[in-house]
Amino acid sequence: MPKALITTVPYGSRSRLSLENLESAGIDYLINPIGRKLKEDELAEMVADFDVIIAGTEPITEKVMARAPNLKLISRVGIGLDSVDLLAAESRGIKVCYTPDAPAPAVAELTIGMMLSLLRSVHLANAQMHRGEWHRYFGRRIPDVTIGVIGVGRIGGRVLRRLSAFGTPRILVNDSHPNLKVAPKLKLEWVDKDTIYKEADLITLHLPLTVKTKNMIQRDQLMLMKSDAMIINTSRGGLINEQDLANVMSVGHLSGAAIDVFNQEPYDGALNKIERCLLTSHMGSMSIDCRTRMEIEATDEAVRFFSGLPLQGMVPPTEYDIQREGLKN
Amino acid sequence: MPKALITTVPYGSRSRLSLENLESAGIDYLINPIGRKLKEDELAEMVADFDVIIAGTEPITEKVMARAPNLKLISRVGIGLDSVDLLAAESRGIKVCYTPDAPAPAVAELTIGMMLSLLRSVHLANAQMHRGEWHRYFGRRIPDVTIGVIGVGRIGGRVLRRLSAFGTPRILVNDSHPNLKVAPKLKLEWVDKDTIYKEADLITLHLPLTVKTKNMIQRDQLMLMKSDAMIINTSRGGLINEQDLANVMSVGHLSGAAIDVFNQEPYDGALNKIERCLLTSHMGSMSIDCRTRMEIEATDEAVRFFSGLPLQGMVPPTEYDIQREGLKN
Repeated sequence: MPKALITTVPYGSRSRLSLENLESAGIDYLINPIGRKLKEDELAEMVADFDVIIAGTEPITEKVMARAPNLKLISRVGIGLDSVDLLAAESRGIKVCYTPDAPAPAVAELTIGMMLSLLRSVHLANAQMHRGEWHRYFGRRIPDVTIGVIGVGRIGGRVLRRLSAFGTPRILVNDSHPNLKVAPKLKLEWVDKDTIYKEADLITLHLPLTVKTKNMIQRDQLMLMKSDAMIINTSRGGLINEQDLANVMSVGHLSGAAIDVFNQEPYDGALNKIERCLLTSHMGSMSIDCRTRMEIEATDEAVRFFSGLPLQGMVPPTEYDIQREGLKN
Repeated sequence: MPKALITTVPYGSRSRLSLENLESAGIDYLINPIGRKLKEDELAEMVADFDVIIAGTEPITEKVMARAPNLKLISRVGIGLDSVDLLAAESRGIKVCYTPDAPAPAVAELTIGMMLSLLRSVHLANAQMHRGEWHRYFGRRIPDVTIGVIGVGRIGGRVLRRLSAFGTPRILVNDSHPNLKVAPKLKLEWVDKDTIYKEADLITLHLPLTVKTKNMIQRDQLMLMKSDAMIINTSRGGLINEQDLANVMSVGHLSGAAIDVFNQEPYDGALNKIERCLLTSHMGSMSIDCRTRMEIEATDEAVRFFSGLPLQGMVPPTEYDIQREGLKN
């Protein structure tokens, strides 16, 4: 009987469908007993017996794989692959699959919600009202700001299409592989990243974390931004240097930020002290429908694998190339 | 030289255009020196010398008008007329005008932002993160909930059209004068209010405050709602009984609420204690562009009036009829 270690939490709490999937296929499973994102050592200690990891964003490194002689499949519940050492998996013959489409609608909706909260200072007014303070903030509307979208793939494209109902802001976009048909109703200006940093009022990131994007926004990039600009990160914590962001915001730069993802999760750091920084707890994909779809797709893969059927969400070779490229630097 | 009392605050702080309007027309003005919404007595004491009130939502009653022998025009910066005794104005020959279209886009955007915050518990996660707590909330997406819109006029219609980019939720609508062409891309179900209370997951109100709508949502209506339903009010505080809302929420009914408007403003009451109640400080119209447009339109009317030109935003007879109807009850 194959054994699955389900590391991502919460898991199966809103729908048991994916667990029933495993049960009816005769796959035994254990759900992460620690109940939060595992550290490398914790996972390494836990993984010895398992044939498959139904994985969150915890580090699945060479060290972890070395402790998992039975491991044959890593099935990521989600899209990002920065947590998985794909090359180590490849050299050990461990297959890796993921669910790249499932989280996109939920992340896009959260992003639009964060845009509207930032633009109108909803988070600030709410905090003050709950302290009995009343201050009427001026805000701006979507059609009156310049929006910069860095990364125009599954999620960035969905953000743009939802924006199309809010009038016609100036929209600056950047992607290493521009998709010119992504949002036919909108007039998009394809520009370099520095132009976005300098000219956008509201910047949102929809990129994977790779050696090329890690720390792409540090103090220098933040200081290129307008003093009243706003930035949103619902992708991966490593894209923005958190300490630099906290430093520039604590001396008054930027009018707001919305951060859902962090270098270390659970997060408890300097951004907590900055009230105009809207913080959420890696909730991008956490809509019941998307989460359920992710869980089912990830377990479907495990069931297929142990039934000898071909995988449907195999990580494509380009993702391995990105990590190979990273090793050279 | 005519004298204008500008009661609404903040005023002219983001754009001086409307003040320059008055200045170049030779209209003297005083901006509310108290700096918050005036009470009836405060306004009555202040109003003696003025020919026109550039008005917010403070009560402009018979008592106030009796102390204002020179008053000839009330120019409301905004849409709601619940604060103005139209019949008293009529009997004294005081004209009343308003700016009904200007705030609508800003209120609609704030409403969509509140929907997305409530659906994903953004306000809860943010409060917890700032206390160093990490909890990943499950949420729901717009296409997966039943949305109820009560009041489908200038603002409700704009809310619906913005929703059209988020997929196809079930949408229940109610209006005393249904506009069947309001959102051609959406399938709307026109139903009675009780059906909305019972069946909607997310209810938003876009109604004027009149004798018919005052306290329309009290304990009985709240208890018709699903235990995990959410309600948004960006219209007028009197529509929902605040104490009833606080009472039912404090014992666990409703999964969230977003309230921008209150019986008494500035607000400091029982809802402050309920963290899943998202509170803002009457900021619906507070986008710089809409606010500027409202201020300019309201002063344009004063300038026209004192130049002998016809008003463009006269309050229509139906609004007087609503207040006349109210007197009969």
